[in-house]
Order: sequence, then structure tokens, then C-alpha cells
Amino acid sequence: MSIERYDIVIVGAGPVGLLLSTCLARWGYKIKHIDMRSVPTVTGRADGIQPRSLDLLRNMGLKRAIMANEPAKVYEVAFWDPQDGGKGIHRTGTWASCPEFIDARYPFTTLLHQGLIERVFIDDLAKHNVKVQRPWKITGFNTDGVDKHYPVEVSLSHVEGEEHETIRSKYLFSGEGARSFVREQLGVKITHKDPIQHVWGVMDGVVRTDFPDIKLKCTIHSDAGSIMVIPREANMVRLYIQIASSTDPDWNPRKFATTEDVQKAAKKIMKPYWIEWDRVEWYSVYPIGQGIADKYTLDERVFMGGDCCHTHSPKAGQGMNTAFLDAQNLAWKIHHVESGFADRSILKSYESERKHIAENLLNFDAAYAKLFSQRKPSAGEVTSASKSDSSDQPEEKNEFIEMFKSNCEFTSGYGVLYNENIFNWSESHPAQSPLFLSEKKGETTQKTGRILTPSTVTRVSDANVVHLEQEIPLNGSYRIYIFAGKYGKTRQAITDFASNVNRKDSFYTAYSRRDIDSVSYHERHNPHSQFFTFATIFNAHRPEIEIKSMLPQVLVRYYDHVYTDDVFDKRAPKAEAAAHAKMGLSQQDGGVVVVRPDGYVGCVVKLVEGSGTVDALNEYFASFCTKAVGRGSTHQARL
Amino acid sequence: MSIERYDIVIVGAGPVGLLLSTCLARWGYKIKHIDMRSVPTVTGRADGIQPRSLDLLRNMGLKRAIMANEPAKVYEVAFWDPQDGGKGIHRTGTWASCPEFIDARYPFTTLLHQGLIERVFIDDLAKHNVKVQRPWKITGFNTDGVDKHYPVEVSLSHVEGEEHETIRSKYLFSGEGARSFVREQLGVKITHKDPIQHVWGVMDGVVRTDFPDIKLKCTIHSDAGSIMVIPREANMVRLYIQIASSTDPDWNPRKFATTEDVQKAAKKIMKPYWIEWDRVEWYSVYPIGQGIADKYTLDERVFMGGDCCHTHSPKAGQGMNTAFLDAQNLAWKIHHVESGFADRSILKSYESERKHIAENLLNFDAAYAKLFSQRKPSAGEVTSASKSDSSDQPEEKNEFIEMFKSNCEFTSGYGVLYNENIFNWSESHPAQSPLFLSEKKGETTQKTGRILTPSTVTRVSDANVVHLEQEIPLNGSYRIYIFAGKYGKTRQAITDFASNVNRKDSFYTAYSRRDIDSVSYHERHNPHSQFFTFATIFNAHRPEIEIKSMLPQVLVRYYDHVYTDDVFDKRAPKAEAAAHAKMGLSQQDGGVVVVRPDGYVGCVVKLVEGSGTVDALNEYFASFCTKAVGRGSTHQARL
Repeated sequence: MSIERYDIVIVGAGPVGLLLSTCLARWGYKIKHIDMRSVPTVTGRADGIQPRSLDLLRNMGLKRAIMANEPAKVYEVAFWDPQDGGKGIHRTGTWASCPEFIDARYPFTTLLHQGLIERVFIDDLAKHNVKVQRPWKITGFNTDGVDKHYPVEVSLSHVEGEEHETIRSKYLFSGEGARSFVREQLGVKITHKDPIQHVWGVMDGVVRTDFPDIKLKCTIHSDAGSIMVIPREANMVRLYIQIASSTDPDWNPRKFATTEDVQKAAKKIMKPYWIEWDRVEWYSVYPIGQGIADKYTLDERVFMGGDCCHTHSPKAGQGMNTAFLDAQNLAWKIHHVESGFADRSILKSYESERKHIAENLLNFDAAYAKLFSQRKPSAGEVTSASKSDSSDQPEEKNEFIEMFKSNCEFTSGYGVLYNENIFNWSESHPAQSPLFLSEKKGETTQKTGRILTPSTVTRVSDANVVHLEQEIPLNGSYRIYIFAGKYGKTRQAITDFASNVNRKDSFYTAYSRRDIDSVSYHERHNPHSQFFTFATIFNAHRPEIEIKSMLPQVLVRYYDHVYTDDVFDKRAPKAEAAAHAKMGLSQQDGGVVVVRPDGYVGCVVKLVEGSGTVDALNEYFASFCTKAVGRGSTHQARL
Repeated sequence: MSIERYDIVIVGAGPVGLLLSTCLARWGYKIKHIDMRSVPTVTGRADGIQPRSLDLLRNMGLKRAIMANEPAKVYEVAFWDPQDGGKGIHRTGTWASCPEFIDARYPFTTLLHQGLIERVFIDDLAKHNVKVQRPWKITGFNTDGVDKHYPVEVSLSHVEGEEHETIRSKYLFSGEGARSFVREQLGVKITHKDPIQHVWGVMDGVVRTDFPDIKLKCTIHSDAGSIMVIPREANMVRLYIQIASSTDPDWNPRKFATTEDVQKAAKKIMKPYWIEWDRVEWYSVYPIGQGIADKYTLDERVFMGGDCCHTHSPKAGQGMNTAFLDAQNLAWKIHHVESGFADRSILKSYESERKHIAENLLNFDAAYAKLFSQRKPSAGEVTSASKSDSSDQPEEKNEFIEMFKSNCEFTSGYGVLYNENIFNWSESHPAQSPLFLSEKKGETTQKTGRILTPSTVTRVSDANVVHLEQEIPLNGSYRIYIFAGKYGKTRQAITDFASNVNRKDSFYTAYSRRDIDSVSYHERHNPHSQFFTFATIFNAHRPEIEIKSMLPQVLVRYYDHVYTDDVFDKRAPKAEAAAHAKMGLSQQDGGVVVVRPDGYVGCVVKLVEGSGTVDALNEYFASFCTKAVGRGSTHQARL
């Protein structure tokens, strides 16, 4: 009997495994997905979806299903501290959880228990015939190279040990959580940034209370201890309470507390306010410390992500969000390698990009906690820090405000900034065209390795007002936004752009679809290539644009991706073309913004007459794709 | 065997019957709902949800389920006319389907076939254990008064005639459509406003074409005939084509045309553009004329609504929307009578309010068609008409522009204006307090009988940015918005308001819930009375408001309905408190806006110190409620 072959084996059906599975299933890969639990999460566990993650879920078409559960939305965070003289707690400040200075489409945190979130992915997987096999576990694996196309052998068994399977796969992914069999087998160590460990109690329930901020996220310090309050769906509230710390004289990582203990403690801490429980839905006690895996992969065949690679206090509310972005980062890279678009070496960037983010997260977590334990912000500081950058008032810079701002950006997900590398252009990138625009030099506001700034435009074909950053779904394609400025000024440049992408040595033509002649008339995103989608945005009013007569043929084919930049934006109230202005591009002459399949900016290029703009893009893509592209290239693969 | 008794028998499960059924099921009524068809609508039929109807569906918590079907959204309408010299059609103008001057939350028409819309209601009914009985029909009814509580006897039978039921009911409602058995039995005549009849062909399908506006709503006139284009969900397009008219020399109301005939005609009309069909999903040919029922009810026991009462050309796209609002209007009035809140005489206002709207609709339909057949608008006129009222440029008034504006308001649903009556305060209303504010006198922008202007505010309890007009669901309650201006200025007025609503002779106390002592702590909307919800909106920033210490007890109980008016609105960009400004109320002193359960403004009252404000409300409610309320009243029912 021949051994069954898969593109990938995914172990663990928490957020990281499910998002990876969902992407790859949609893109046609054959998946074996297992989980040790006999059923998905029923209640509790992770629950905070940050603004950036909501963007991602929407880009996957899953936001509506998430929102159908009527999650709580956190717009503000309140800080409560002890008053003098044993009078109990009082509020010392509140601030926005995603302040004005962050240009977020959804400036709030979405709170919903992990089980409801998992269900949205599981339903989507079912549409692509992927079912998580439960309760199964991994019992062994090796990258033996016996089959060079399927180099990984994986052994699986039913949790109760009655059934076994041995299969071969191209990849193995561990989304097993903090206690990962795969990580142990690989001998990958966890580095503890902060040596202090804590035991946390977490309790979801419905309460009655006269505490006024019960529907805000609150950090409460009192003489009787500390507690964190997080509102939840279905009128619930979550309380986090620190039960023990490794700095305690009687430290015991197995210290337990009952729900009654926690309720009693909460009542003490929240004085002079009263609180009573109608019911408790979920309660858990667990020890946790800050840790980060030394490696995310050893051979770019066996990968790890999510809690398996990084753990930290629940305070930051980042676990699930970091997991989502781990999975998203890996998904398109595997896809690009397996579909023959990109060089296998790009898989190394999974670890370099994502481990860097986890390190930032842990540093923030630690530094932020420390800063808060040292001093409390004044109301003035908070107000000042919350203001938009476009505010007229000059800001006094100080350590707290700077920290606060970075922290908000980071926890919202918008602070994620991947370092310069082959995807994220910089002056040291192999592509050296003088037409690349640099954020550092002030030539554009778009920083490579950072998420594209959101903007609202009008779609020409149906006059719908749309969110430009969401127009191209997460489907593995690069998003090439041609900000076309004024038609009268850029007409020749756009014509030249089109004729150069049509050259047979261009990045675009080199990766034409094999089935190009049979592509549906109704294909909106990928009529010519699975790896690129073009969007063209004019500084014009919608009725001024006639797609067929004004645009070159190749862009006409992206009929549903032609836009006019004519929607008011309060962040650029005086701009004629607000999206152009927000990108930091000329409203007359435009520019081209290349966005990675995951929504992060890859490079920004000047839009010029002649071949220069496409030449620059050829150079950029040539640095990691499998074919030699660009003027004078020989169309031979470099590998 | 005793005869089965129902609160209402609803005949027909199209939009009007389903919306009525959904409201009454939620409010606890016992419903018999039948439909002649053996299954719900599968494809085709009505498909346009106007902006105002989308507000209503959202207010019922059904918008997300509608949107999950990914409907098309129409933001613009294009006009195409013949060119000279037989060169085919050309575009003569486009405009917004819901222009800027209308302050709509959703400025577009939502296109989705009727079956998908029906399914949303049917799913909701299932949650309340109401199932449409199919295929059943009504065979007879009479209001015999044998049982004074259930005065209507109704006979029903299976369509194939094998089973029969005779039941008794408080009400009978016909949502049977144009060919209504009930209407016929009642002998109610249809008046034909416009004697001209038409035969229309309507076809849904997926097309390929180079016609640039295929995703807009288009009215195309050509030398070869006329056609209307409407985009649809799932990449479909609907074509309406007029096949025959009673003004034709060879008029035949049974004239038929095949899909091929219609496609052939469309191809001719759309020249010089080409169009081909991938598939046709639905096709129908039907004769229709403008008609309106002389009565909507004879005895306020047997009611009719929807197509049963008004028919018109499909051009206006108003059929389903008018049906929805018929049902909504009747639902809360029946509820108020049956729950003992309002005098039975209020049921007369169903016909007076809704028939007036249907008459307006038919007049518009006719006048608008006539105007267009006379002359074409110039591009300049359209641009000018589309502009916001707040535009700086003075507008040239002319008949076309005026007509265009009224038409847009009307077709969007925002032009619905109920006449002055017992619900819609005017100077001739029985309530004569000098504190009522009048739109006519410029004391407020809120016109009684018109929908409340939308506004965006911050909810104090959880800092969520919310749509104020949606905060109180369609649950049969009056919505009493206390715009509280500046706390420092209105503090005493609010205290006085509270103590006066707490008086035992107030409208509020008179209709306290019988189960007031056992109402859940978590009840947000109706803690004290099923008929009123209070919302308080301050001109302040969220952190400045401490609900428990600043508000009187009765308003504290509406903890989740306290707001701050601190969100930027581009329609009132310079206002400190945009919602106050948009209501035309003092940003310092506020005012009270009473909104009917269906979202239409009932009255606006000055917020003053002393008992005046509540006295005015007592007078207003006393004019239609069952108990004598107000200062000095004797607590005896007037009936």
C-alpha cells in the first residue's frame, strides 16, 4: 500500500493552525490537520482580536461571521489605583485603546471567546473539504529526504492509541501551543526574557456591579492586589488576577485558587464598589512566563508558530493576534515556493520576520509593565498622548508618552514593522533603481515592512465607496497600486507602464497563468497572473473616468480595480485626492505602491514615462522570484 | 372541540407579511401565518432595498444576515439616450442614487433577490416558533363578533383542498399581493391613478458586455426601445424591458415575449455596445398598472398592506420597501392597542398614514416619468442637483432640480413624511404646551412624521462609537432622547425631568411594567416600562460623564443609553456637539426629541427647569394613550 502524501501536516487547531490551514486550503493544497482535543474550544481561552487582526480577518472574508457573534468592542482602557487612607480604588485615567494618531479602520479591540473564533475558521475549512482530525496527536517525524518531493515523514496516532498513521508531507507545522512535542523533538530551546513567572487566574462570567467601568478594559491596582477587567460578548466580563509570582517568598508554580477565592479577592480589590456573579462560564488557573523559541524552523520544512514559539503575560492581549500573523506570514511564502514563483530561500524570512516581532512583543511587555510599576501617568499626559499627530498643539515629548504611543501602535497591530529584507525594500536592497521612493527621505509616507495605510476611494465600475486596502483579498497575490495622479499628467507614464509590463521579460509576463486562455471573463483579481493584481487610482471624480477609452488594455482587464480618489478623509481634509495624500505621493504625478500578499508595503516606485517604473519593479521581483526577469534577462531560471 | 384562537392570521409570506409576522412574533403574539406557495421565493421578484429600509432592517437586527448574501450596492444611476445619426446610445448623465444632500446612514440601494430576503425573516420567525403553513390559502372570513375578544372567524384550506381549518382571531392581515382574495371579499376597489397599463419583461442573468455601466442602475432610451439595467448579487444583472403599453395600437395585456426576444431587443437597444448572456437565472413577463386600494381596512380588524393595496411600475423600485413600511406601521399600533397602552382609535392611522404615502408614490411615479419623457436633464443640472445643501454655491432652482431632489428623497425612503396627526405633533395637536418646538418655525430641524436624523455619538458605559438612531431596537417602545446640552447648564432641568417622570400621574409611571420588581438587572431598554426607553446625550467628552453621580436615578437605570456628543460629523464640522447641532437644538441647553417606535419623530420639546417638559410629554401621550396622565389627572381611563 502506497503511503499517503500531503502538502502539509498541521498539528493543533488553535488560531495559528486554523488560519494557516484556511489559507492553504483555499489555495488548493492538500492538508492533514489534527488536534489532540476531541472538540473545539467550548468557552474561554484567548479572546482579544486587535484592530490589525480584524483587518486581516476581513481581508479573508471572515469578519462578518466573527461579528455575527456580537462581540464586545473595547475602545477605551481605564486605570484604577488605590486612594490614600484605605478608601479603596479610584480612576486615575482612561485612554483610547487605539488612539486617533493611529489611522486604523477599526479602532477597537474585538472580544470574543476563542471557540467562537475557531468555529468561523472550521466552517470555512469545511467549504474546502478540510476537516480537523480529532483527537489525534503527533508521535514522531523526520525529514529523511527519502522522497525529495515529500521529504517529511510524520507519524500520527489517535490520542487513545488505537489507530496510527504514517504519512509523507512537504511540510510539517506545529501550532501545538506552549507544550509542543515538535519543538521538544527538534531540541529547540525557549529563552526566557524575563525570568519572573506568574500564576494567573482567569474567569469569564456575568456580573452585577456598581463599578462604573465594567464595560471598559481596566487595570486595577489596589492595596489588596491587582486585577484586569475585560468586557466580553454576551454581557460577560473576564477578570484576570495574578495568583502568585516567582518573586513571592512562598512561590509555587502549582498554586491553585478556586473561583470563590478569586471572587473574594476581586471583591476586596474593587472596594468601594460591589460586585456579584450571576454565573461563571469559565475559569482557569495557569502558570506562565515570558519565553521565546530560539528557532522557528531548522530546515524550512518543519515550522512552528503561535504559542509554541512565544509566551507572555495575558496582559498584552497579543497571543492570538501574534499567532494569526505568524500563520499568515508563513502561508503565502509556502504558496510562492510551492507554486514555483519564489526561490525556496524566502522561507528563511518567516523566522527572521516573525521572531523579530515576538522579540519586540516581549520587550514591550516587560518595559511597559516596568514603566507602569514605577509611576502613574497624569491625566494630562494621557490626553496629550492620545491626540492625533495632526493636532495643532505641540506635544511635550517624554518617556511615558513615547512609550504609550509605541505601545498603542504595537498592541493594535499597526506597529508591526518588518525589517529591511528582500521583500521590504531599502537602500541596501539588490534593486537599485533610482526610482524607488524612500520613507526615510520623506518621499512617501509608506514604510516598507509596515501595513499599507487605509484609504477610502470610489470604485469606477459600480460607483461603490470602498476601502482600498481591502479591495484585493488575501489570495497570495502581490497588490500593485498604481496611484495615477491626474490623468492629463500621467497618461503617457501609464501607457508606458502597460507596454513594459507586457514585455515578455517583465515580472508580470514571466508569471502569466498557464491557463490564461481559459480564465473566466468574470475573474476580477487574477486574469493574467496568480501572483499579481493591479489597481489603478486616479485623482479624479468618478464620472470623469472612462475605463475602456482612458486606460491601456492590461489595466482595462482589471475593470473592477479602477478607482477615483474623491472621498473626503478627515485625516487629509484639504487634499484634493486624500488617498494620494495619505500615501505621501504627488496628487498630480502619483506613484506605484507594491504591497505584499499579506498587506505590508514592499516598495514604492516613482511613476515615470518610459520603462523606468517597470524596470524598478523587475529588479525588485527578480531579487526573490525563480525566473530572471527584467530588461535583457534571458528568461532562464536562476536556480 | 374548542376552536383555535390566534392574535392574528397573516395571509401571504412576501415582504409585508413576513415583516409583520416577525415583529409580532418577537413581541409575543400568537400567529397563524399561511402562504399559497409550497416553498418560499426561489429566484427573482422584488430585489431593491432602499437606504431607509436598510435602516429598518438593521433596527430589527437583520441587516447582517441580509449583507451576508453579498448583495450589489447601487450608488449611482446613469442615463443613456440615443445619439443623432443612428450611432446608438450614449451616456447623458449620471447621479447619485442617494445624493449628499440626504443625510443617510447607508447612501445606496441594496440589491438582492426576494427569496434571500424572505429567508432572513423566515429564519428569524423560526427562533420564535412561527412557521409559515404552506401551501395554504384563505377561503373565507367574517367579523361576526360572536367572540368579542376574537371577533374574526377565518377559514383556511390546503391549496389542494384536502384539509380545512376554521379559527378565530383578533386580526386578519392580507399580504396576498395584487390579486387579493381578502380585498375582493371586502369589495374594496382599486383606483387607477394613471390609466395606462404596461407589460414588462424582467430577466436576471449573468452577462458579458462592453457596456461600461453594467454595474450601475441605468435607464437606457434608444431608437429601438427602452430598457432598465439593475446590478444584482452574484455578479448578475437584471434587465427590465417594456414589452407593451396600453397606448399601443395593438395593445394586448397578455402579450408575451420569450427570453430570446428580450435578449434580441436588449442587443439592439444597447448598440454600439455588445452584450451576451452566460446564463439566465429568472425570467418573467407581467402586466401592471398604477393602482391604489380605496381602503386599507374597513373595521380595523381586517387589514391589508403591500402590493394588495398599491401597484405601480417596477421603475420606482419601491414595491418591497413600501410593503416593509406598511407592515412596520401596523405592527406597533396593533401592539399598543393589544397591550393596553393606546386607544383602539389609533388603528385608523394605519390607513391614513400609509395610504398617503402610497398616493405620493404613485404621484411621483407618474410625474417623474412625464418630466423625463418631456426633456432630458443637462449635465449641469444633474451636478447642481446632486450637491449637498450645505454647499457654498447658490443653486439655481428649477422644476427639474426640485423634482429630482424630491424624487431622490422619496425613493431613498427618507422623503416619507406622515401628515400631522395624533402622533405627529403640530400646532393643531391637542397638546398645547408652549414648550413644543416647531420645525416650521425653525426651532428644531426635526420634522414630526419624518425619520430622526442619524447621528454618531459615544456610549459612555463602554466608550463605543455608535449610531444613535439605532441604539434602541424596534421593540414597540417610544424613544425619548434627552439631548442634555452642557451638564452645568441643564443639571437642574434634568433633575426636574426625572422627578416629574417619577410622579405617579406621569405617562411613564402610568405605564410601569407589571413585573417591574422582577425585571432582570441586565435589561437595557425597558427596565421600567415596555413602552418607553430613555436615552441621554450630553455635550461633553466621554470621560467627563460619571453616570451614577451626575444623573438622576431613573436615567442611571438606562446605563447603556447615556452618550456623549463628541464625534466629528462632516455635516456639522464646526459644531462642538454635532448631534445636538444636527437636531437643530441648542448645544448648551439641549431639548427632548420623542421618536415613535418606528423611528419617526413624534414631537420635540424644550428642556426646561420645573415640570414643563414632562407636562408637555404628558399632554402629548395623553392624546392617544388609554389612561389619563398628566398633572391633576384622575388616573381613570378615558374610554
